[in-house]
Amino acid sequence: DHKLKIFSLNSNESLAKEVAEEIGVPLGACSVNRFSDGEVQINIEESIRGCDVFVIQSTSAPVNENLMELLIMVDALKRASARTINVVMPYYGYARQDRKARAREPITAKLVANLLETAGAHRVIALDLHAPQIQGFFDIPIDHLVAVPILSDYFKEKNIPGEELVIVSPDHGGVTRARKMADRLKAPIAIIDKRRPRPNVAEVMNIVGNVEGKKAILIDDIIDTAGTITIAANALVENGATEVYACCTHPVLSGPAIERIDNSKIKELVITNSISLADDKQSEKIKELSVAPLLADAIVRVFENKSVSTLFN
Amino acid sequence: DHKLKIFSLNSNESLAKEVAEEIGVPLGACSVNRFSDGEVQINIEESIRGCDVFVIQSTSAPVNENLMELLIMVDALKRASARTINVVMPYYGYARQDRKARAREPITAKLVANLLETAGAHRVIALDLHAPQIQGFFDIPIDHLVAVPILSDYFKEKNIPGEELVIVSPDHGGVTRARKMADRLKAPIAIIDKRRPRPNVAEVMNIVGNVEGKKAILIDDIIDTAGTITIAANALVENGATEVYACCTHPVLSGPAIERIDNSKIKELVITNSISLADDKQSEKIKELSVAPLLADAIVRVFENKSVSTLFN
Ligand SMILES: Nc1ncnc2c1ncn2[C@@H]1O[C@H](COP(=O)(O)O)[C@@H](O)[C@H]1O
Ligand SMILES: Nc1ncnc2c1ncn2[C@@H]1O[C@H](COP(=O)(O)O)[C@@H](O)[C@H]1O
Repeated sequence: DHKLKIFSLNSNESLAKEVAEEIGVPLGACSVNRFSDGEVQINIEESIRGCDVFVIQSTSAPVNENLMELLIMVDALKRASARTINVVMPYYGYARQDRKARAREPITAKLVANLLETAGAHRVIALDLHAPQIQGFFDIPIDHLVAVPILSDYFKEKNIPGEELVIVSPDHGGVTRARKMADRLKAPIAIIDKRRPRPNVAEVMNIVGNVEGKKAILIDDIIDTAGTITIAANALVENGATEVYACCTHPVLSGPAIERIDNSKIKELVITNSISLADDKQSEKIKELSVAPLLADAIVRVFENKSVSTLFN
Repeated sequence: DHKLKIFSLNSNESLAKEVAEEIGVPLGACSVNRFSDGEVQINIEESIRGCDVFVIQSTSAPVNENLMELLIMVDALKRASARTINVVMPYYGYARQDRKARAREPITAKLVANLLETAGAHRVIALDLHAPQIQGFFDIPIDHLVAVPILSDYFKEKNIPGEELVIVSPDHGGVTRARKMADRLKAPIAIIDKRRPRPNVAEVMNIVGNVEGKKAILIDDIIDTAGTITIAANALVENGATEVYACCTHPVLSGPAIERIDNSKIKELVITNSISLADDKQSEKIKELSVAPLLADAIVRVFENKSVSTLFN
């Protein structure tokens, strides 16, 4: 009779604690530190022989530190005779490097998949991968969770009638995601349609769909420097939207992101805790929702050999 | 007719430049930067199709950044149709995590070997691996270079008669290395023989061999926090050595290393440029020797399909 063990590394310990509490098991005992020269030093402090182990680690910034912690932990678990090693990555770093967009580029999202398998991962649980195709980068099972229901439920509680709302994708790539939220809120969609008329001429920001007099909700998977989303918000207001909300699964929020959001027309930014926000990345506009129940449910289902419910796209 | 290309990443560009000059080729054009969120961004800026590519990167601190740069570069080279990808690692990070010294430890040195192969490396050129067994962690060819001749030649120029010298290993693991240097300098060896008489009792520092009235040269592969080497130096002086020199291949020099060396009985510390010294790790006592000619020779020999000369042990 094997056992369920959950370990946290350093990227997002508060989320891991929440997940463990949700499931009702203590976090596994292990220390993840650095040697004097900066090398990762991991000590697993309890037996995991024959156990089904789940390691929770977002490969958010510092991405290379967090990824190496994860790979080294998987190696240690393998050598300590874990029965299965399940890698739970609320945020999958390097997901945007998922194709050669230029000559001689790496495809780092695929490299990361290969590295995880090489280290010894048996299964991956991921959340809102930047492209669903990244599932195919793995030769091991991957469960792909989706945060749209969590984000949608939050906006549902505002009790705004669907016809007063419009769900907006900030680019062409995100339309499927906007469509899913729109279904849940019984609202129409719109798309920010950027295009460059000629090379070396400024982009034209066109809005496909009607936003006039509506409350707009911008939805994206990742908000990084927040350039796209804040420009989109301002364009929505110029086109007659009465209020603009923004939401995303993964708050990368690097560089000028917080400043841009604070200075933008965005009324509220709704995020999840897939990435733990650094102390210098707080804003009054931010509302954080927890993906802990979603991850906990997936972990228990994998452990019990049940299918993980997801929204396919 | 294929071509030789040499690329440098960010860990040790000055050494890579020296190697390229020695060989008489320009460094390959490529930019290795970071995206706003800290992810590695690599652009190879010239065609390498069908070429024999040599990437020079020490996985010294920041080890995880440098290792990820290397893995991503290898991925990019593979996708850009390099004929062969040869990884030149003057310093191989994580080499000390080469076995399970305690229960449930990772063997990160082996993990790193697997990651390099997974990324697409065809061959590795390494220098003074912490344990020669790490060669066996690879399923691809590895050339293992040795810096003892370079270090020995430097001391030879001091024209100290062999009988006035003693070559000292700071621990049991380094005796083979000390023996090699002693052969070249026609000098005897000694060993610092630390042992703990009972648990929880201070270590006893015993010297096996005669150092009285001699000039001692301590030799190690890595000097990290410099605890071992400075304690050894002081013990040698207490036992009658008239002068103490220290030398190593890899100057990790983390934490209190520089302070300890400056305050120790060590007269001169001879290192190589396998690791590029940070600006805050300079000391008047340090003399740096270049391994560029050694690496250049190995690269040319690999490229010309000739055997690489090494010192086996
Ligand atoms: N960490 C990153 N930050 C910003 N841009 C990135 C990052 N990683 C990859 N990219 C670029 O983003 C583009 C992919 O984004 P997308 O078009 O939204 O799928 C590619 O052209 C990549 O070169
Ligand atoms: N980066 C590091 N810094 C200090 N000690 C390390 C490091 N990596 C591994 N070790 C430890 O050093 C020991 C191996 O060193 P050695 O006995 O000299 O081969 C092992 O017990 C490791 O746990």
